[in-house]
Amino acid sequence: MAVKKTFPEIKASAWLNSEPLSIEKERGKVVLLYAFQMLCPGCVTHAAPQVKKVYDFFSRDLLTVIGLHSVFEHHEAMGIESLKAYLYEFQYTFPVAVDNQTEGNPLPDTMTMLGLRGTPSILLVDKKGFLRSHLFGRVEDLQLGVELGVLLGEK
Amino acid sequence: MAVKKTFPEIKASAWLNSEPLSIEKERGKVVLLYAFQMLCPGCVTHAAPQVKKVYDFFSRDLLTVIGLHSVFEHHEAMGIESLKAYLYEFQYTFPVAVDNQTEGNPLPDTMTMLGLRGTPSILLVDKKGFLRSHLFGRVEDLQLGVELGVLLGEK
Amino acid sequence: MAVKKTFPEIKASAWLNSEPLSIEKERGKVVLLYAFQMLCPGCVTHAAPQVKKVYDFFSRDLLTVIGLHSVFEHHEAMGIESLKAYLYEFQYTFPVAVDNQTEGNPLPDTMTMLGLRGTPSILLVDKKGFLRSHLFGRVEDLQLGVELGVLLGEK
Amino acid sequence: MAVKKTFPEIKASAWLNSEPLSIEKERGKVVLLYAFQMLCPGCVTHAAPQVKKVYDFFSRDLLTVIGLHSVFEHHEAMGIESLKAYLYEFQYTFPVAVDNQTEGNPLPDTMTMLGLRGTPSILLVDKKGFLRSHLFGRVEDLQLGVELGVLLGEK
Repeated sequence: MAVKKTFPEIKASAWLNSEPLSIEKERGKVVLLYAFQMLCPGCVTHAAPQVKKVYDFFSRDLLTVIGLHSVFEHHEAMGIESLKAYLYEFQYTFPVAVDNQTEGNPLPDTMTMLGLRGTPSILLVDKKGFLRSHLFGRVEDLQLGVELGVLLGEK
Repeated sequence: MAVKKTFPEIKASAWLNSEPLSIEKERGKVVLLYAFQMLCPGCVTHAAPQVKKVYDFFSRDLLTVIGLHSVFEHHEAMGIESLKAYLYEFQYTFPVAVDNQTEGNPLPDTMTMLGLRGTPSILLVDKKGFLRSHLFGRVEDLQLGVELGVLLGEK
Repeated sequence: MAVKKTFPEIKASAWLNSEPLSIEKERGKVVLLYAFQMLCPGCVTHAAPQVKKVYDFFSRDLLTVIGLHSVFEHHEAMGIESLKAYLYEFQYTFPVAVDNQTEGNPLPDTMTMLGLRGTPSILLVDKKGFLRSHLFGRVEDLQLGVELGVLLGEK
Repeated sequence: MAVKKTFPEIKASAWLNSEPLSIEKERGKVVLLYAFQMLCPGCVTHAAPQVKKVYDFFSRDLLTVIGLHSVFEHHEAMGIESLKAYLYEFQYTFPVAVDNQTEGNPLPDTMTMLGLRGTPSILLVDKKGFLRSHLFGRVEDLQLGVELGVLLGEK
């Protein structure tokens, strides 16, 4: 018998704007995981402002927003000092995990584990800890709102 | 003991894009009622394109969209011929009810019955026929999406 | 020897927001003529707000803005009462000429005389009274600005 | 008798997308100088896309666009490798000078020389080499277009 697995924990080398978070401890809330690169145009111009809007819209008791900086190109251009400056300048205050990079691997660890296709990606985890949506690329506010509404309305 | 009333039927003098609709017959679906005037700037530039986006996004089996043309100013400028041309030119194909105007009354009948504050207004009716949201003015896509998602997720 | 003709006078059945204007009397200023229909989507959502922006940006001593309501479809929906309500509701205060319609003709008179292809159209007349640009459809602010800048910079 | 000075040469430590440029050699063309930082939100979301639009709009024979990366904060986050990745990812192909930083000085050299107030700044130099506009912060496309049009129309 197959057993559906809950969402795994993020493998981070550092956390910004927050103490390290555990997905498991967020049970009872919806979790929005936003995988990005700070120099990815779709992230910078659309997805990041959208995630900020979501973060500002909901009570922290209902929804947890986590950024995941999954760098897979231009590594030297997107180090942690650059990321810190980016978050500071754009006033992004939601928690951000720096995806761990195991030496010799082509992609960072959480990205590999989750099977992300690239950035931006938005993953939605329901109150019971199961992955319910895996969105890649540009997502309209209306669609993201509907998906969040469905999950938030569940008991 | 108070008994919660279901949403009343629209009082229309005409229907465009559709046969006359009954809210009661839409049980099991979510209903979005969009009250507008064809020359109200907030309707023309924001709310109507948003309602069109919602109408195009969802299956007709899940959501019913109804426009309600509730004219309370410039009556001679927004007659049914003007309304028809407006809907045609902007390619709005969702059902539209023309709110009935009883002679001598300051406001049209459905507008009065529903206690609308003006246009644009968006009212959301759940699958059991109860009013759940009454929004006036500009609503963000994200918020409207969340409210729709909650209602659509209900059994 | 060919003689270049100056821009002809508008043939209007009525003027709103202004006394009747003569293009000839505007010599020394640049004239922006904006042909529109109040129910043309491209006019309502892009061109009219753009023309308002231009009108608000420049000194009246430098630039004259004239709207031209050239109705060639849905005549009954875009009569003068509807036009007045439209201008009032959207707070368009620039002068507007109602293009004269000679009975039996397919198009209004100024539209025919100027060879307009449809709405929205923007025509730019230089300080000496000569037509310099004839733009049809959507025009970017940058392009319109450049064309105006060139004409305004001329002695 | 005061003699009006022509625009000085840029003091650059490196050039990207181009060989080193001399303002003097651009005589006969209009020059748009765009001072930015790659992590300044107003630059990233508004000014840089606007400058790209200008760069794509005009013939290279009429207008020269030069970016100037004047870093005065978060230096470690905006080094040349980060700048290269930023230009590459956003497909900015106009010439970019890296403003020279003299050790011990609070601001980079060209920024100091030109008296820039911050980023984004747009400076327009006319065909004779004289500074004609010095714009700081958000500039509307319409305004920038007008200013360019005036300068481009000059003999």
